[in-house]
Amino acid sequence: MNSSPKQYDVIIIGGGPAGLSAGLYTARARLKTVLIERAAVGGQIINTMWVENYPGFVDSISGIDLTQAMHRQAEKFGMETVYADVSALAADGRTKTVTTSDGVYAAPAVIITGGSERQKLGVPGEAEYTGRGVSYCATCDGAFFTDKEVAVVGGGNAALTEALELTKFASRVYIIHRRDQLRATAVLQEKARANEKIEFLLSSTVDEIVGETFVTGLKMNNVKTGAKFDVPVAGVFMAVGFLPNTGYLKDIVALDELGTIVVDLEMATSVPGIFAAGDIRSKSIRQVIAAAGDGAIAAISAEKYVLA
Amino acid sequence: MNSSPKQYDVIIIGGGPAGLSAGLYTARARLKTVLIERAAVGGQIINTMWVENYPGFVDSISGIDLTQAMHRQAEKFGMETVYADVSALAADGRTKTVTTSDGVYAAPAVIITGGSERQKLGVPGEAEYTGRGVSYCATCDGAFFTDKEVAVVGGGNAALTEALELTKFASRVYIIHRRDQLRATAVLQEKARANEKIEFLLSSTVDEIVGETFVTGLKMNNVKTGAKFDVPVAGVFMAVGFLPNTGYLKDIVALDELGTIVVDLEMATSVPGIFAAGDIRSKSIRQVIAAAGDGAIAAISAEKYVLA
Repeated sequence: MNSSPKQYDVIIIGGGPAGLSAGLYTARARLKTVLIERAAVGGQIINTMWVENYPGFVDSISGIDLTQAMHRQAEKFGMETVYADVSALAADGRTKTVTTSDGVYAAPAVIITGGSERQKLGVPGEAEYTGRGVSYCATCDGAFFTDKEVAVVGGGNAALTEALELTKFASRVYIIHRRDQLRATAVLQEKARANEKIEFLLSSTVDEIVGETFVTGLKMNNVKTGAKFDVPVAGVFMAVGFLPNTGYLKDIVALDELGTIVVDLEMATSVPGIFAAGDIRSKSIRQVIAAAGDGAIAAISAEKYVLA
Repeated sequence: MNSSPKQYDVIIIGGGPAGLSAGLYTARARLKTVLIERAAVGGQIINTMWVENYPGFVDSISGIDLTQAMHRQAEKFGMETVYADVSALAADGRTKTVTTSDGVYAAPAVIITGGSERQKLGVPGEAEYTGRGVSYCATCDGAFFTDKEVAVVGGGNAALTEALELTKFASRVYIIHRRDQLRATAVLQEKARANEKIEFLLSSTVDEIVGETFVTGLKMNNVKTGAKFDVPVAGVFMAVGFLPNTGYLKDIVALDELGTIVVDLEMATSVPGIFAAGDIRSKSIRQVIAAAGDGAIAAISAEKYVLA
């Protein structure tokens, strides 16, 4: 149990685009690099079938194909990948220690790229029917709802993207948003409004998710009129926000009021030798290209720190 | 002469990866976007034959192919491209005016992505023999030196990359660096040292470039011993640094001591509605992926500014 830590030059926590880009850069700079990922490499973008705004891919690419390419590219230069849960990060001067379900890792530099998670809606029935009609990933679960009616909760880019994806399977897709305006970018709004399978339920909130073995419908509330109404659906997809995966970092690096890690232009955190990149850092725009750019910046900062 | 300015939502100055990524994002958000480029779209990276550290392209891609794809992708979403020289940028509240050799453009938001240029070495013979043996672009001019001996001046990634490229043509490539250590990343140093065509002349400076019609050699100085020596070469490639293209911006936006544009994490400059991205902004790591990430961030900031 008390074996000595595995020694690296750079430890990357998280295998999304930020971590993969960072690993490509540090491995290519001949720094001994390990990337620690708890589930599948690729991050949230693996749930997106068409990434059409990653510069360089004119005709779009799937999130899985893009991040698998990034992974192969980083491993080509020597990056190692470990699948494990991270439970703690400690900094003692130049020695950083990362405690995982696969043992303890140590390095002078750590790059945190743990991303963020979908927020729960927090209504009755949500937990009960998760996996039985309640989903947080249209690409993963969409095909289960072929020729059925579904709803997406949320008004941002993620919500509209998921709704558009779901139209390939579902017979009807309701987009439920508590406000009377969507936050999503214009092109997505246009696409959604032009799609005859999509119906908007604005100024509306979900009171409860109801069902038997599986979801059968939503009890709704119109926030302007107070009117109650039912929407019969077989599935409901949540796209209402993100929570950064920084729970274990509260007393380690400075976080902002949203719980994301405060960084400067060099992706340096409040602790020398600890860097952050991607959706887990403050003011992230939650885009693959920006996360990948962040990762490269954090890697070059880490390289300078390790070699100094 | 006094025609009214052409109106856009967003004007992008510069057609490198930062500008192309910004244009993809603003055009996709249905903002009327024009990108103004003075020469060829693509930026400095078009001089690089193998880009192996742009995440997503496992087997490398040429700088031209990568940036042409970025350009097609941005134009697919409606970005317009204008080829013109920019001579002035003025800000009057929400109205920004860009004066070019193709007339005057106006928009609430401007994204400056003008990049930087190779620095001159500043020695006798450099100006005289430019284009006749003195070059700033190995990819452009390398083939002219097939089976000849050449030198590269510089110790960074650019210098070693150019030297490696030149080994495909030249019979011998000297790398001349004034210090006794190179700044380039480890993998490039290893590659260069393993290449039998490459010879290092460290702790050495060029006193003069000599020739007849074309370059015939370099008069050298060993900075440690003071010894003078000659290196007979037919070509010399300069890779000694960069100058940001911010000459016309001195009194418009805040610049740092290197002449690059001061930005925050949102790529906002000192002037509301003017953003900067890529090698022209402060603390750039001079990498395509970071420039493209910057461009997306600047675009989303510009979108917020335009819609506000």
